[in-house]
Amino acid sequence: MAITHAAPGQLVDVQPLGDQLSESRNVALFKSDELEVIRLVMPAGKSMPSHGVRGDIMIHCLEGAINLTAGGQTRQMMAGQLIWLEGGVDHALEAVQDSSLLLTIVLRK
Amino acid sequence: MAITHAAPGQLVDVQPLGDQLSESRNVALFKSDELEVIRLVMPAGKSMPSHGVRGDIMIHCLEGAINLTAGGQTRQMMAGQLIWLEGGVDHALEAVQDSSLLLTIVLRK
Repeated sequence: MAITHAAPGQLVDVQPLGDQLSESRNVALFKSDELEVIRLVMPAGKSMPSHGVRGDIMIHCLEGAINLTAGGQTRQMMAGQLIWLEGGVDHALEAVQDSSLLLTIVLRK
Repeated sequence: MAITHAAPGQLVDVQPLGDQLSESRNVALFKSDELEVIRLVMPAGKSMPSHGVRGDIMIHCLEGAINLTAGGQTRQMMAGQLIWLEGGVDHALEAVQDSSLLLTIVLRK
């Protein structure tokens, strides 16, 4: 995970990685007192076991396709789709294609 | 502003609007206790005067190009770029091209 966070007002590129995806790593884009935003890079077949975080989250599929399981239901997210989940809801991810995701987490105090 | 908010776990499409942009309107995608996410549709030339909100915000340019002015500085954001600003920081927007934006606002209690 890269640790160079964007400052307020600094432009951050989140274009599709395309051919660069397989050599790319997760990046913590920024973290404020209230919000943490991470770009997750998930080559096809990669999965993230079920877990939860305290605050509400939004998952935005930037490229590829992933299966998201939450609340006992699995749905496939394609590039250009997003979803939100309430804080504390366990969720698991599995990349169906080479994918990257924008993960936005509200930090509860 | 549409008032049908997405429920948790519901897929929301935020693909570029392309040719449909000029007939599209702003959409409040969802609102939780902690987070509000809106898709702003700004045809070329449209502007939003300087304003601030209490919580931290993230602006993600989904298509087109906009000028964002904040903290006395104007920068151009292109499709696939995002930026965050601390709560209370005044900002103004002007669409350079037909653009749509994802606006994420942390709701302070």
